[in-house]
Amino acid sequence: MGRTSDAREKIITAAQTLIELRGYSALGVAEICKAAGVPKGSFYYFFESKEALALAVIDEHWAAQKRDWTRILGDDAPPLERMRRLFEATEAAQHAGQQTCGTVSGCMFGNLTLEMSNQTESIRARLQEIFDAQVDMVEAVVLEARERGEVTVTDAHAAAASVVAQLEGQVLFAKLYNDTGRLSPLWTNCLAILGAQAPLEAVASA
Amino acid sequence: MGRTSDAREKIITAAQTLIELRGYSALGVAEICKAAGVPKGSFYYFFESKEALALAVIDEHWAAQKRDWTRILGDDAPPLERMRRLFEATEAAQHAGQQTCGTVSGCMFGNLTLEMSNQTESIRARLQEIFDAQVDMVEAVVLEARERGEVTVTDAHAAAASVVAQLEGQVLFAKLYNDTGRLSPLWTNCLAILGAQAPLEAVASA
Repeated sequence: MGRTSDAREKIITAAQTLIELRGYSALGVAEICKAAGVPKGSFYYFFESKEALALAVIDEHWAAQKRDWTRILGDDAPPLERMRRLFEATEAAQHAGQQTCGTVSGCMFGNLTLEMSNQTESIRARLQEIFDAQVDMVEAVVLEARERGEVTVTDAHAAAASVVAQLEGQVLFAKLYNDTGRLSPLWTNCLAILGAQAPLEAVASA
Repeated sequence: MGRTSDAREKIITAAQTLIELRGYSALGVAEICKAAGVPKGSFYYFFESKEALALAVIDEHWAAQKRDWTRILGDDAPPLERMRRLFEATEAAQHAGQQTCGTVSGCMFGNLTLEMSNQTESIRARLQEIFDAQVDMVEAVVLEARERGEVTVTDAHAAAASVVAQLEGQVLFAKLYNDTGRLSPLWTNCLAILGAQAPLEAVASA
């Protein structure tokens, strides 16, 4: 039992790395099993299809990222400070990935959205759930900041969606230019989108 | 000569449609030639490789989009009004694509950035040139708006990059949710990112 669980985990880990490097469509089951060091025959013991594996990879990646987001955004620091830390953590994670792989690999969910969401409804639905959850988490922080009179935005949900869209757009550029410095405007743009009340510098150093 | 030019054009047109529907990695030369109605043997007469075809598709798509952007952003309407029209045109184009394909296919350059830019340096370089050009075109409009005292942003180039990033991020969501209504916050967010001086409604109806 220990060995079979290991094999499943190895397949997921190998697939996650390969998907980050080369996307989903370009991968074959044989290649994934080879990278995982697992006999090809055992793949279908754990996964019904390559699509089922992709969903497992997405779920595992989101479980880890959700833990990070919850820790950062659920902290007891002031709400806008938590938003700032989320962007810093994103930049740090992309930078760490760049050090490991030699190139910024971007956001797995954004990558799979543009590669797959119009082709595979199960993947589209899972990615929608994840981005919905991200927007909800940001919205909760926006509502807190508004309660404190720090932001003026009227539609907190739409603003939160725009903050996440801005994040995805800048991560796209960080990947294209292989430069995590592209993420540095996130904080200023977030304050602008939310209609932050205080001068930006004052909020930034709060 | 007429016939050979036709074949090249047919291959590019078929590849563009297939790339929009299914991405680049999933495609094979045989499938592209079949969709183009061109014998497979003739492919390598026109293109050295599938990568060379991808570059030709990108160039052709950018030539058309650049014409649209130049017409809209180079118009003699007030600068912010031109920005607004760019977002409207983007939403209309995505909506038209959705009517044809049944699903929002997003921005080909954004799609290929997330699918390919960390794998193929020639494609990365070409996409960088295109996004650089887009940012330059937006920056020119931002500088005009600032000259007129309509926006307050200090780093016009960074702000223009953020506007394009916001566009890519919202197009990503339009594709994921198959809903071009996701593009409607672009105008308000653009005004916020640029630090528009007038109340939004006044600028919007200017």
